[in-house]
Amino acid sequence: MSSVTTEKKKIVILGCGFAGLFAARSFANSDYDVTIVDKENYHVFQPLLYQVATSELDPAQIAYPIRSTFRHVENVDFLMAEVTQIDFKNKYVFLDERILYYDAILIALGSVTNDFHTPGADTYCFRLKNLEQAMELRNHILSCFERVEHEPDPVKRKQLLTFTIIGGGPTGVELSGALSELINGPIRKDFPRLDLKEANIVLLQAMDCLLPPFPKRLQEYTQKRLQKKGVDVRLNAMVSEISEHCVSIKDGSMINSGTVIWTAGVKGAPIASQFGVEMGRGGRVLVNEYLQLEEYPEVFVAGDIGLERDPERGVPMVATAAIQQGEHAAKNIRHFFEGSHLEPFAYNNKGSLAVIGRNAAVADVKGSQFTGFLAWILWLTIHLAYLIGFRNRLMVLINWGIDYLLKEKGVRVILPKDMKHIFGWDGVDSSKPDRDTSNE
Amino acid sequence: MSSVTTEKKKIVILGCGFAGLFAARSFANSDYDVTIVDKENYHVFQPLLYQVATSELDPAQIAYPIRSTFRHVENVDFLMAEVTQIDFKNKYVFLDERILYYDAILIALGSVTNDFHTPGADTYCFRLKNLEQAMELRNHILSCFERVEHEPDPVKRKQLLTFTIIGGGPTGVELSGALSELINGPIRKDFPRLDLKEANIVLLQAMDCLLPPFPKRLQEYTQKRLQKKGVDVRLNAMVSEISEHCVSIKDGSMINSGTVIWTAGVKGAPIASQFGVEMGRGGRVLVNEYLQLEEYPEVFVAGDIGLERDPERGVPMVATAAIQQGEHAAKNIRHFFEGSHLEPFAYNNKGSLAVIGRNAAVADVKGSQFTGFLAWILWLTIHLAYLIGFRNRLMVLINWGIDYLLKEKGVRVILPKDMKHIFGWDGVDSSKPDRDTSNE
Repeated sequence: MSSVTTEKKKIVILGCGFAGLFAARSFANSDYDVTIVDKENYHVFQPLLYQVATSELDPAQIAYPIRSTFRHVENVDFLMAEVTQIDFKNKYVFLDERILYYDAILIALGSVTNDFHTPGADTYCFRLKNLEQAMELRNHILSCFERVEHEPDPVKRKQLLTFTIIGGGPTGVELSGALSELINGPIRKDFPRLDLKEANIVLLQAMDCLLPPFPKRLQEYTQKRLQKKGVDVRLNAMVSEISEHCVSIKDGSMINSGTVIWTAGVKGAPIASQFGVEMGRGGRVLVNEYLQLEEYPEVFVAGDIGLERDPERGVPMVATAAIQQGEHAAKNIRHFFEGSHLEPFAYNNKGSLAVIGRNAAVADVKGSQFTGFLAWILWLTIHLAYLIGFRNRLMVLINWGIDYLLKEKGVRVILPKDMKHIFGWDGVDSSKPDRDTSNE
Repeated sequence: MSSVTTEKKKIVILGCGFAGLFAARSFANSDYDVTIVDKENYHVFQPLLYQVATSELDPAQIAYPIRSTFRHVENVDFLMAEVTQIDFKNKYVFLDERILYYDAILIALGSVTNDFHTPGADTYCFRLKNLEQAMELRNHILSCFERVEHEPDPVKRKQLLTFTIIGGGPTGVELSGALSELINGPIRKDFPRLDLKEANIVLLQAMDCLLPPFPKRLQEYTQKRLQKKGVDVRLNAMVSEISEHCVSIKDGSMINSGTVIWTAGVKGAPIASQFGVEMGRGGRVLVNEYLQLEEYPEVFVAGDIGLERDPERGVPMVATAAIQQGEHAAKNIRHFFEGSHLEPFAYNNKGSLAVIGRNAAVADVKGSQFTGFLAWILWLTIHLAYLIGFRNRLMVLINWGIDYLLKEKGVRVILPKDMKHIFGWDGVDSSKPDRDTSNE
């Protein structure tokens, strides 16, 4: 195969999230020799991670093997590998076991959770940016309920049954809504001895409203619907520290909580800071309006990891922006090789959506605002449409149907049980003295 | 609730495999106070573990939350806990965090892999007795193919692409058939550069036939079908030692293999040997014909972990026997409390089934022998019928349908990636010198 392709321009795409995937698709069956590199063998549909964490979906239902996506595309290849460095001068990318030459490269390595160096967050918070983290959180949540069956001490029971979500953006809202439905549905039925008044979902938002980019009416609707679901929504609640089983808020209050989930921010994948390129805020690589590095015109950046130098041209770190940037970067790479003018990226804001739960969502689409059932159906349709793979769509649709009709979350298994990065499976460290809790 | 139930007899069931589950079901809505104890929160349908290992099914599709099974059954309770000891004299069972009193107890803790102390088996073999092991094996198999894309050395390529299955019983046969279909189907399509002639599935059987308890005609059919699928079936091949990437056979031959799966035997769950009761061969608890301990008449044993004292009354360690024993032990526990005569257990052999692959299975049912499509349909129907949960049945049926129509295995994700108990994810330890391989 090498002899045939030697004349083709080599394009390496680092990362197969939304930006990388859609960029690679743009090159399908073209005259370029494309290699996608990702450390996982699947593309994951990140907007539904919270449904894996809340026992609604199987992890594999929102993951699709990257190879299979490009099975019938001869010029797009995949390598499962981790990027360690890029030699921009000589145009080589270093993988853990191999070095690749490129004529052009697209950096689309995505983002990780940003805890803004809040003390204790790194050690004690669950995160929700990849499938492993979602499974770990699911296993932990289910284990808390199993564990509480053995626990007579009311302080420890409270700890096990208090779930604190930090961040009032879409992920925090969606997660707290889904967690409430998990607890008030299947968990309530499965644990008849449990007094649900003991269970608490606390949503902490540093600002004075939920879903900051949304119109005020939708923010208020979201807050009311969450409160109706029993979520303890606290605005202007800036977290100052997290210790084991305790969240401290700037106003002095504390929450005794065995489960703390940080959803309040993302930053560029840490590897980017080692590339020796100019970085902007939030650990993101600074690019020009063509999504290109000024210094190395054959290097393009798309998705969460990139930040346009012009602060007025910033785009939100969401899937639709990543998709558009991935496709645009691919187009500019072609222009670059064809010697034609690059086009500046223009973000087409198709609107914002967030789901609160059953029949309840908010949508802000080109100035029109929807709430309730209509927004919910819109949300379901768009998410199903963007899922990759027929089987996955069918399985997700069935899971949603079963949930809707029977109020069941089908995937309530603690599996694999040895995923215990944070606590032991029981969520309680009995060697430590109990903490005073002023607030709970 | 405790005040109401104080007069009820307390029955503890240890383990919720087939025996424990069906025993508990027999007590549903009776006048006994039943507690099931299991270290997992789900019952797993073990006969389909090999389909999880070969990317056909999601792990959660063959697992069902134990609590949900007994959601509408007031007298059956569940505790997620591990058994550490039993005080037979005072009738207490010790769990990791709690002690339970019982009036009668059913020990149904199942079995684990038995490698008969073959040197190296414990360290280097994959096993297939629980869902964690099945996921680990799936991740490893898929990783071998990703890894071989980076590997130029032909010896190491051979190592990565040689899968050795030890044991020619149903698990070994079913696993090698499914692995062949995975490799010759989706893997072949996803790895166009791979020469499938490099890939090898070796099935090692110590005896002179596959599926020893089956009639000779079915054994021969099985062997031929597997060979047609490209499986290298070796009879009379007794494994003497397993080292890293190498299986040694008693006749002196060696196989250079990065994946070795031990399916050649089971033994009683190891905890049983600490109970201080009389043990039979294979780490199993010796019981009388009533499935009862002679010394402690309120202690019953069912499923793989029990062995009838009378060697002529042995039953196979299979799901149907466990189900029958579980139900029978439950009946005898009732007789025991009611003061009526216990009934000796009589195994009703409904027949044996093993599937080789697409349209190919063998069935030996009450003297009638079936092969091919008919046996295959019988196998599918029975397995679907015994799966627990409507959602699971539907999902499994869809996965099977997609596989049948499109020759796809839907769950080809390496997830979670940090399950690497045996090797690193790449299956190759490059620090060790390559081994000579006389046989491959």
